[in-house]
Amino acid sequence: MLYDPRQFRALTFHDATARFRDGSDTPRAYLERCLETIDKREPVVKAFVTLNVPGAREAADASTARWKSGHPLSLIDGLPIGIKDLLETKDMPTEMGCEAYRGNFPKRDNAAVWALRQAGAIVLGKTVTAEIGGSHPGPTTNPFDQSRTPGGSSSGSAAAVAARMVPAAIGTQVGGSVIRPAAYCGNVALKPTQGGINRGERQATSMSTHGVHAGCIEDMWQVAIEIVRRVGGDRGAPGLFGPDGPPTRLKPSRLIVLETEGWAELDAKSRTAFETLLERLQQTGVTLLRRREHASVEALEHAIGEARALCNRITSWENRWSTRNLVDQFPDGVSARAKATLAKAEQMTPDDYRAALMDRAAAQLRHAAVAPLADAAITLACPGPAPLWSGDVPGQPLASRPTGDFVFNAPSSLLFAPAVTMPLLAVDGMPIGIQLMGQQHDDARITAMARWALETIAPVS
Amino acid sequence: MLYDPRQFRALTFHDATARFRDGSDTPRAYLERCLETIDKREPVVKAFVTLNVPGAREAADASTARWKSGHPLSLIDGLPIGIKDLLETKDMPTEMGCEAYRGNFPKRDNAAVWALRQAGAIVLGKTVTAEIGGSHPGPTTNPFDQSRTPGGSSSGSAAAVAARMVPAAIGTQVGGSVIRPAAYCGNVALKPTQGGINRGERQATSMSTHGVHAGCIEDMWQVAIEIVRRVGGDRGAPGLFGPDGPPTRLKPSRLIVLETEGWAELDAKSRTAFETLLERLQQTGVTLLRRREHASVEALEHAIGEARALCNRITSWENRWSTRNLVDQFPDGVSARAKATLAKAEQMTPDDYRAALMDRAAAQLRHAAVAPLADAAITLACPGPAPLWSGDVPGQPLASRPTGDFVFNAPSSLLFAPAVTMPLLAVDGMPIGIQLMGQQHDDARITAMARWALETIAPVS
Repeated sequence: MLYDPRQFRALTFHDATARFRDGSDTPRAYLERCLETIDKREPVVKAFVTLNVPGAREAADASTARWKSGHPLSLIDGLPIGIKDLLETKDMPTEMGCEAYRGNFPKRDNAAVWALRQAGAIVLGKTVTAEIGGSHPGPTTNPFDQSRTPGGSSSGSAAAVAARMVPAAIGTQVGGSVIRPAAYCGNVALKPTQGGINRGERQATSMSTHGVHAGCIEDMWQVAIEIVRRVGGDRGAPGLFGPDGPPTRLKPSRLIVLETEGWAELDAKSRTAFETLLERLQQTGVTLLRRREHASVEALEHAIGEARALCNRITSWENRWSTRNLVDQFPDGVSARAKATLAKAEQMTPDDYRAALMDRAAAQLRHAAVAPLADAAITLACPGPAPLWSGDVPGQPLASRPTGDFVFNAPSSLLFAPAVTMPLLAVDGMPIGIQLMGQQHDDARITAMARWALETIAPVS
Repeated sequence: MLYDPRQFRALTFHDATARFRDGSDTPRAYLERCLETIDKREPVVKAFVTLNVPGAREAADASTARWKSGHPLSLIDGLPIGIKDLLETKDMPTEMGCEAYRGNFPKRDNAAVWALRQAGAIVLGKTVTAEIGGSHPGPTTNPFDQSRTPGGSSSGSAAAVAARMVPAAIGTQVGGSVIRPAAYCGNVALKPTQGGINRGERQATSMSTHGVHAGCIEDMWQVAIEIVRRVGGDRGAPGLFGPDGPPTRLKPSRLIVLETEGWAELDAKSRTAFETLLERLQQTGVTLLRRREHASVEALEHAIGEARALCNRITSWENRWSTRNLVDQFPDGVSARAKATLAKAEQMTPDDYRAALMDRAAAQLRHAAVAPLADAAITLACPGPAPLWSGDVPGQPLASRPTGDFVFNAPSSLLFAPAVTMPLLAVDGMPIGIQLMGQQHDDARITAMARWALETIAPVS
């Protein structure tokens, strides 16, 4: 089951709709194929917490009728989708990977879920999340090697797409929770500009976003834009900008190669593979700009040089009171990892938080300053292949990052910048994502460049 | 029980602490005096939804012991406070003035409530809110005339302070829900710069803030700053800036007189009283700047000329999905007023919302442009005395604004600007608030100016 980016064919949806129109395929039949795959793969992959199969079949039949009558609700009408179990859904519990929320069933739809249903998408199930979107992992395994993590916290969303169970899934990111698992699982994924997709009741922290995991760029974009056309962005934000259909491919002229603090931690094979990919980009005529070649790039690298720690400080402070309430109410319902994060947050003062916000704002200015220098930035989306993970060992200290390291993801979160990961590398038979990061609101532009890259550059493996 | 601003003496706390130190008074005795007042006034005023008297007495005894030992937790240690029933409290239900939330008891403390307890304040009860902070009123009456509204949505917080039941109470504002009821009830109150006080789990809309109602400027500021010292501002915001104790009085050199769209709706008596107050200000040497005297002021007046409608569009869109979920789940649990607001929101598109955000941003630029012209803006805090209100009449159309008109409050909400209301007018034996509005983060400065005005200018009645 090893991963070869030249061989692997992800499940796609956009190319099925022509057959829905001519009647040679139906959304119901598409769903049944997904269910067959789930039957086969789910016992090992464990991507889902809950499935609503009867509800999905009913929705697929309604979609089938709409396509038959020539009046689909949107281009994703009939698309079976997984929803990260942090988002509320009317028809399934929302347990957030947390003991304290076991059985939690608020019977509400997150705004994005509401929008997906309005667009005719089939809300098939809730996907496993690391506990409350943090680092304590759920049971999901990497579909390409069950001894490895799928990444987190959107573990189930990434794995369900990688295992071809669904063509797309919704994830959320605060530090690296969309892009990293997508990168470990060979998905494409979009972490939009901060505020890009309406988070509904989950407007939890100042750096969290909804994101989309998919098997291809077309489905990734279509899911995102169909949501935003119906519910817009977060409160106070204009929301994702871009075309109603997939952006046409766009060749970048120049890309900034961002090292980030992850460079030093990169294994030799992954670095070599990335350099090979960069050479292939140059062979097409794309110019690369490195940190030593421009003072503004170097200044940006400095400003994001401790992005992980900065993200952690900001987010743990912002979650401090909600976590404290949870721990007080359910002392045994929260993991030791989450409690350790809370303990750190409770050492912080409002002035510590203010200082962190100022560091973040300064980094954002450094990022804006490189806008004229290149079309986007390119970097890895994860520091090498997904790590091995077989669970905590009783009596041993807790592994610090069981779902992998978000060292390459913290920068886009911190900068409120859109990021797209592309499955363009493989090392040791495991996928490694390559990330394009744009300026705020450049979501459609980096999607168009990702489309160009995926259609043009031969993957490195 | 008519109101005379020269006679009325509000309940204050800051001047009691000297006696807590010397033992001639105690927080427990202070609380018992509050409870006596509540016993006497509550049957008519109906400010509280819930009281936790045993918990309050226990907390007051603990506070008494701390003052006795010379180690109070803060300058508000022992201060009995009311909490608007939109904010979660561990020890009391949170019903939000809404049938659908009857019995809702999440056993969590809102971040601000947590901070108040940490500072030793006594969380005495939950105060009546208009339904979910909207316009559908609760049972509270105006303490100075029971045939009139106390204003809303922080109805109970304003009334509890006006009736001398508590020296301070927490309210929240989205359109005018702190400043207007405070103005109708003769409170002082602070609606801070957007993001000034950590809203905790209630980070609901892009214009909502926690605010403080109090009997005097000193208590108002102290409550606000003690919260912010412990929990900071909203996620992503630096929070309220200012001194650890009440700002010293500051005489403004020049004030902009803002008319707002309320000017046209003002009754003759209230306008005359306001003009008399402005004359008194001029007599102290303060210069006034009117809209016809400077193009930038005129431009600001234009930009806020439809602030009410703009606030309504933004807020109803932002609440759209949470209200839809509530109505779907509890069809009979939500008022016709709230359903009518939802129906309007459901006519809006993401582009309508984007346009409203741009109008808001443009108004904020117009406001920033007047910063060099004056120390602050002055205007009424409500369009005349609190309106008569005796409840909806079966069979009649619903009154559109039963808790009064937020026409003078929408501007500061829209501009994310801090506002302080001062009880400096009375008309027909009812209080009318006068509002100082500053630039963003000028909270302490306008508090200092309000202190100067309250200590210097004779109220008009």
